[in-house]
Amino acid sequence: MRSLTTEAKRAIFARMVPGGDILTTFEAVALKHGIRAGQLTLIGAVSMAILGFFDRESMEYKTFTVDKDLEVVSCTGNIASTHEGGLIVHAHMIVADQDGRCYGGHLMPGCEVSVTIELIITEMSEDVQRAIDEATGLNLLNIK
Amino acid sequence: MRSLTTEAKRAIFARMVPGGDILTTFEAVALKHGIRAGQLTLIGAVSMAILGFFDRESMEYKTFTVDKDLEVVSCTGNIASTHEGGLIVHAHMIVADQDGRCYGGHLMPGCEVSVTIELIITEMSEDVQRAIDEATGLNLLNIK
Amino acid sequence: MRSLTTEAKRAIFARMVPGGDILTTFEAVALKHGIRAGQLTLIGAVSMAILGFFDRESMEYKTFTVDKDLEVVSCTGNIASTHEGGLIVHAHMIVADQDGRCYGGHLMPGCEVSVTIELIITEMSEDVQRAIDEATGLNLLNIK
Repeated sequence: MRSLTTEAKRAIFARMVPGGDILTTFEAVALKHGIRAGQLTLIGAVSMAILGFFDRESMEYKTFTVDKDLEVVSCTGNIASTHEGGLIVHAHMIVADQDGRCYGGHLMPGCEVSVTIELIITEMSEDVQRAIDEATGLNLLNIK
Repeated sequence: MRSLTTEAKRAIFARMVPGGDILTTFEAVALKHGIRAGQLTLIGAVSMAILGFFDRESMEYKTFTVDKDLEVVSCTGNIASTHEGGLIVHAHMIVADQDGRCYGGHLMPGCEVSVTIELIITEMSEDVQRAIDEATGLNLLNIK
Repeated sequence: MRSLTTEAKRAIFARMVPGGDILTTFEAVALKHGIRAGQLTLIGAVSMAILGFFDRESMEYKTFTVDKDLEVVSCTGNIASTHEGGLIVHAHMIVADQDGRCYGGHLMPGCEVSVTIELIITEMSEDVQRAIDEATGLNLLNIK
């Protein structure tokens, strides 16, 4: 186990507008407020969800689409930066349809905001970095 | 995207007692501690869940009931206030039955605490306001 | 309803290594950093999940195993201490398989980290205690 100690600074509340893409808007909020590391959570609704599952045989994300109106019943994750200065949002989302049936996975591009998405980002005082892990090819948290 | 910057102040841990209603108790905790804006999360168990799904055709919440003992496996959301001084708790909940089957939706009145509910509210230093959105009739976050 | 007021101190980001047990590693992170009370959230992936459901007839946790690669799509909970000085991690987890199907319950020993688990603990400034509740035999939050 590797760990890093930091502290919460600001909390950003944001409301995403209908038609927007959740992941893109996450990045826009982080950029607007100069956030380099954080924790995130959101609830709301989407008209379509694209979620991922990391397949350890092919070492790739497989994605699936749930193409209907959905409540976003949970979405939690973190924001970290790369050595090159980029930001990576890593979040997992659970959506539910009108019968309450749940679908969960890795948040992918293509999740389209419908009525509203209400996001809270807790900004951290220290940079949290990611770097490519040779075993998986994934950008894992690069902490000691 | 609209956003607002604030900071976490106090964290309130609360334990709900069997037979109580989750949403009503949320509001009681917020009132007791004078909380005007916050982030919330809880886990625990209920003997019955009533959850909602916003139907964009009728522009109303449709509700469904899961009438059995359930673990509350996730419940996240926020607390904001109205122009008139009222408080609105907006939370989405996921419950699981004895086989792990999950049901998710908008937290409605009528979710009855069974063994325990353990709640954490993070209070924010700035008011977060809601106002009626004309397009949906919903009380959306009123931030710029 | 009973409640206790505290404040967030440090935030600990931790990355769990493949093959580790989630609950055991939680406890190791808390011990390493001297955490006595906190809030926790994580996302990642496991090769196997063991989850529990509290059965109010037998007054025991019944467990079930989901024995395949899974995304951990939500895991939230808290850390508190016992009168005797021990730490108790109480968390509920939701996992999803490659089709997005979700399983949720009480986090039990035996959930094995696969690719990565990314954990954030928010440490609280006050001790939060648990004590045996006579009615259920469970270690419930002992707050007034």
